[in-house]
Amino acid sequence: MMNLAILGPGLLGGSIALAARARGGARVAMWARREEAVAEVAALGVADRVSTDLASIVADASLVVLCVPVGVMPELARQIAGAIPAGAIITDVGSVKASVCAELGAIFRGRGRFVGSHPMAGSEQTGIGAARADLFADAVAIVTPDGASDPEAVASVVDFWAGLGSRVRQVAPDEHDRIVALVSHLPHLLAAALVNAVAAENPGAFEYCGPGFRDTTRVAGGPPEMWAEILGTNRVAVRDAAEALIEKLREIATLLDRDRPMTEFLTQAKAQRDRLRLPKHPHA
Amino acid sequence: MMNLAILGPGLLGGSIALAARARGGARVAMWARREEAVAEVAALGVADRVSTDLASIVADASLVVLCVPVGVMPELARQIAGAIPAGAIITDVGSVKASVCAELGAIFRGRGRFVGSHPMAGSEQTGIGAARADLFADAVAIVTPDGASDPEAVASVVDFWAGLGSRVRQVAPDEHDRIVALVSHLPHLLAAALVNAVAAENPGAFEYCGPGFRDTTRVAGGPPEMWAEILGTNRVAVRDAAEALIEKLREIATLLDRDRPMTEFLTQAKAQRDRLRLPKHPHA
Repeated sequence: MMNLAILGPGLLGGSIALAARARGGARVAMWARREEAVAEVAALGVADRVSTDLASIVADASLVVLCVPVGVMPELARQIAGAIPAGAIITDVGSVKASVCAELGAIFRGRGRFVGSHPMAGSEQTGIGAARADLFADAVAIVTPDGASDPEAVASVVDFWAGLGSRVRQVAPDEHDRIVALVSHLPHLLAAALVNAVAAENPGAFEYCGPGFRDTTRVAGGPPEMWAEILGTNRVAVRDAAEALIEKLREIATLLDRDRPMTEFLTQAKAQRDRLRLPKHPHA
Repeated sequence: MMNLAILGPGLLGGSIALAARARGGARVAMWARREEAVAEVAALGVADRVSTDLASIVADASLVVLCVPVGVMPELARQIAGAIPAGAIITDVGSVKASVCAELGAIFRGRGRFVGSHPMAGSEQTGIGAARADLFADAVAIVTPDGASDPEAVASVVDFWAGLGSRVRQVAPDEHDRIVALVSHLPHLLAAALVNAVAAENPGAFEYCGPGFRDTTRVAGGPPEMWAEILGTNRVAVRDAAEALIEKLREIATLLDRDRPMTEFLTQAKAQRDRLRLPKHPHA
């Protein structure tokens, strides 16, 4: 039986705990910074053990999963580096990977085996109260080994996400960051920009929103601090993605009085959109 | 009992038929251009009468609803103008209103009483097979009287949509077009531009899409010909809306290395998004 230590009691940490116990029969220890969060985790019964004492939570872990904002990961990693069993595997759920993998890889070198992860699941909801055992089912999980990664640890992390029902992909950290800039961070930027553009142009227009506006802007309901950190950490790739989008918006704007080319532009987009393999569960 | 004539057997026409019979006990006659569509409507049993014979469908109508693409509305209007009962009320479901109201208002002058409408409901699905009696429940329906509108006809059209469960708003046609450019047409433009930007930058990235990308791009799955026509008909307001969005995207891109202002930008968007009153039913 795997001893799993989950650091951080949010939507992802809670969902991993539920899924790992339900599907893999893991023994789950969970760390939370605040006593109130410990009490909530205990009340929900999602972990076998929960505590604010970091060393005791990771002491017998075979796999440690960091489920905290990317900005606090290095500090947390330094705190556990001396407390984990020799050879323990560490991964994380951060939405950016190049900086996380470089920093955490260096911190754990010689003490544990770090491999980055990014499960493409979640919603605009936050908190362990929204956790669900099927959050990762049929969702993509990206594992991001680099040149320094231990192959056995990579295989273990891949198996871990596959065991939670995810479709696992392996991508280098910097390529990961360019990909998620396009398919995750850019949609977020866009949703917020769209809401704020309408607010600036004609706030009364919000009265007239239909389902199209609702879905296009859904992710703008996500936690601002977390997203500001994610977007800032991946700023180079996100800026490139935003420029690419602005270029396409300028292109489509020139097609507004050309019916045939506009139809072709929309047909190309529809064909691509219809081909997407999307999660079966609306995690929304 | 109201005699309702619905011209066009698509998602909206079919849903109006279902809703008007279920909620208002209307007698529904439906016109379809093709015999195959007549057969489908008959098989689904959504109308009391269905035919390709336009004159017979509108002959005893107290309210005629045009549910065809905006580009073919004037021609259809000319065909029925001599066949409707004197004083009949005519409305439509077109997504643009200034041009439609001007043209159809002129065609029906002295023969019937035209008032434009735009129910903000629908989905990327099309066809009468996707019709549902609750499509308009709690959705916004915009009624667009102009200076030439008959007040009694306006009140009847308002009552009609309210009777289908909609929240009715009255707005002048050109103001309507500016509003929907922001909350409906721009999201469509945006969704298509986002899909095509990803295709241009890194088609492999589609493999990694999560629920955020799915929802942000949902409307890009809509029918291209119909949307090319809508966007082109409302091109001036849509171009203005696209420019406003590009400006906001440029603004947010400059905040990528400024954590506090970015958090404020996202907080403003979230607050506005959280305040939206959105339809209870996901019409998706």
